[in-house]
Formats: sequence, C-alpha cells, structure tokens
Amino acid sequence: MVTLYDDERLDYLMTNERLKIIQSPTIFSYSLDAVLLAHFTYLPIKKGHILDLCSGNGVIPLLISDRTAGKITGLEIQERLYEMANRNIKLNELTDRVFMLHGDLRERQADLQQSYYDVVTCNPPYFPTPKETEHNHNKHLTIARHEVMCTLEDCIKSCKLYVRPGGKVSLVHRPERLMDILTLCRAFRLEPKRMRFVYPKAGKEANTILIEAVRDGKAGLKIETPLYIYQADGSAYTEQARRIIYGI
Amino acid sequence: MVTLYDDERLDYLMTNERLKIIQSPTIFSYSLDAVLLAHFTYLPIKKGHILDLCSGNGVIPLLISDRTAGKITGLEIQERLYEMANRNIKLNELTDRVFMLHGDLRERQADLQQSYYDVVTCNPPYFPTPKETEHNHNKHLTIARHEVMCTLEDCIKSCKLYVRPGGKVSLVHRPERLMDILTLCRAFRLEPKRMRFVYPKAGKEANTILIEAVRDGKAGLKIETPLYIYQADGSAYTEQARRIIYGI
Repeated sequence: MVTLYDDERLDYLMTNERLKIIQSPTIFSYSLDAVLLAHFTYLPIKKGHILDLCSGNGVIPLLISDRTAGKITGLEIQERLYEMANRNIKLNELTDRVFMLHGDLRERQADLQQSYYDVVTCNPPYFPTPKETEHNHNKHLTIARHEVMCTLEDCIKSCKLYVRPGGKVSLVHRPERLMDILTLCRAFRLEPKRMRFVYPKAGKEANTILIEAVRDGKAGLKIETPLYIYQADGSAYTEQARRIIYGI
Repeated sequence: MVTLYDDERLDYLMTNERLKIIQSPTIFSYSLDAVLLAHFTYLPIKKGHILDLCSGNGVIPLLISDRTAGKITGLEIQERLYEMANRNIKLNELTDRVFMLHGDLRERQADLQQSYYDVVTCNPPYFPTPKETEHNHNKHLTIARHEVMCTLEDCIKSCKLYVRPGGKVSLVHRPERLMDILTLCRAFRLEPKRMRFVYPKAGKEANTILIEAVRDGKAGLKIETPLYIYQADGSAYTEQARRIIYGI
C-alpha cells in the first residue's frame, strides 16, 4: 500500500513497464532529460555505489535500478519530493538497494561518504535565479528548474566531493551552459571524457547536452554520435529516441 | 606566368572552379579540414580585414576570397610554403587584396596590427611534438602537422593578439583537444559562441571540431547541426558534405 495524494498521479515509466512512478504536474514530473541522462550514464552492472544529486521524486534512481544491482542513493532538498521519492522506492519494491536522503547538497552530508561513489549523476536546475516576482506561484517547480537552492558550481562541487578518484560523474544540461560546465569540471578535476549532443531534429541546433567526466581522469574527450529526438518532419520519435524512451 | 617546381602540381580548388592551387604531396596539400574551416567561418562580405594563421600554401585565404571583398593576410612560418602561397595569390590574380607574410606567430609581427582584425582563422598543427626519430624524414609535413614550431596555446594566444574586440576567431581541430581549446579560449577572453561537430558518418564519433569564439564576447554557446561527411554505407559524400566540398 502506497499513499497517493490528490495532486499526484501514478504513471508507468515508459522505459520499463515493470516500473511505476508517482508524480505530480504541480510538484514534479520527470522529463525526457532524466530518461536521456539515465540512458547515457555508465553503470557498474553487478555491484557498486551510485549517488544521484538533485534527485527529485527519484526518477533517475528508478530508471537506472534495472541496469545495475548496485546500491543507489538519491539526495533531494525538497521534503515533499524526498517523501514522494520514498514512496516510489516502496512502490517498486526497491527498499533493499535504493535509498533517499533529505538534505541540501551545499551542506556536508554526514550520511554520504566522501570520495566514495563509483558514479554520481545530476540533473541540476537549468535556469538562473528568476526575479522575485516570477517564482512565487509554484515553489516546487521553481526550485527544481531554477538555481534558487543551488548553483551549477554547487552541483559540480558536490559531485566532486562524493565521487571516488577514477569514478564517473554524469550530467545533463543546456548547451548555453556548456562552457561553464566544462570550466567548472576542470576546476574540480573532473575531466570530461564523453559528450553527446541531443538535437530536437535534423537541421536544428542541439538543445540538450550529456557529459561524463572522470575524477582525476586524463585529458581526451570523445564526442559521441548525435541523438535526434524527432524525425525530420517532427511527426514522430526517431528510431534511436524510441529505443531510449521505450527501452526497446 | 607562375613557376611550378618538379615536386608540385596544379590543382583546381573543388569548391570553386575559378580557383587554382599549387600544392605538393611531399610539402603541403590542403585537407578537407581547410575546406570545412573556410566554410564554417563567418566573413564580412564587402570589406574588413581577415588574418589567417598557420596559413600553409594559402589555401584558407584562397577559399574565403570568393566570399568576401575584404583584405586577407596569411602568416606562414615555412619559407617554402610562404613562397608557394605567394605564387598561389598571383596565379589567382588576388595580389590586390590577399597578402602573405613570412614569420613566426610566437614572435611579435611588426607588419600585423594588434587588436585589429575582424576575423582570425587558424588551422593549427593537430598533433603533439613527435619523437626526434619520427620527424626527420619530412620536415615540411612534420611542421604542418605537429606542434614543433608552435603549440595550441601559441596559436590561440596569437589569435587573441590580432583580433579586434568583438571580432571572431575560427578554429578547426580534433575532439580530443576540445577541452584544451575551450580552456585556452576562456583564458584569453575568446568566448566560444558556435561549435559544429563533424562526423565521418552516422553512428560514428566526431573526428573534427569547428569553433568560433568572439573576443570579449558574452557567454552563450550554440551547438550547430552535425555535419556528416560520408553516407552511412561509406560509399559517397553526403549531400551536405557535397555542397561544402564542391561549393554547390
């Protein structure tokens, strides 16, 4: 038995029909970017420790749970989402290896071991802090989308703090912040090793970037084959996007 | 009348049948990368000043000469190539607005005005300095391809020295050096604004990167639509590559 509140709904995760997720259009719903990040992220198959920062309702831990038998921990600052994530873990019977923490990544988390995790994932807020007048109407969405509670630097610093030397950090963001991300990664000795650019369709500029960096890694970056989401006429997903989105 | 030495041949530039170029398989032949850089580079149409560093036999100045009425200056360190470039300029009757300088970009060039050029292009040597044993058999090709006479930092520093504030710098290189290029650009206040990744064909990693940076520009990077050179079966150029390579 899992509680479902009035403003919530129960969805299947399209990537895997065994997985269900509680979400809410007014609080937090997972985005395509979460699916792309989960798919892009390297995961140890049989064991290991994975940390997901800015975890929201736990969508990344759920999505990656069927690709690794390792232990997954999510950290979320919003109590309402932390609590939603906990229900998601119960709902999917993952309480033995997926765990949520309620906390602020800007503060040192006593429950998270430093320089320890094999993989750290983060789908951070994309947009700068909005004007005071803009972010009153929906606090939950504002915090998830805007750099109200943490900046990009806070996120990358935190990734560095918890990933082990040689461990991997996976991020999803917008191309206009690529320079900032790469500069911060180098500053924190997270060496970018793989990037993939996501294009809404052929002939358009990229609107999403996926980056994997290795703590204390050697220089040497690979640019993976581009990912197009929609077919050229915009009518349907491309075959490559379908495979990721529907897990086929 | 233009002299052609025994080890040289006279080719048409495929992008424009009016343009001819003297090159030599043992000294310097232009590559696809030069064609891609020339095509990628923003150019003022009616006037302006363009500088091409590491100019070789002047292929970039020749290629861009039919897209701008501005003045183009090339700088080349190898006397043999400088001299070949001068013959190329004469051959194409461009002596009124294309000029070559023989010099080392690591030294201050009295004939080049600092903070002056609207656009600076550079197709630098891609590879680190080879071992002593490796680079004796062909000095000309070694200097063109390896960081023997100038490092990536020397090149980017020199771009910054000559481009005017707000002017553009265009570079072509390999993905494995992307982090170094972006880090150096930021260090010299050349803000990357446009990038395009070139893939040999669909499903492969990128093997060439094109970058445009603006001196003292604001942050904000666009990732342009990918460029594939060969069709998926590898048999022929893609339509987008054909348009660039044959100028159609």
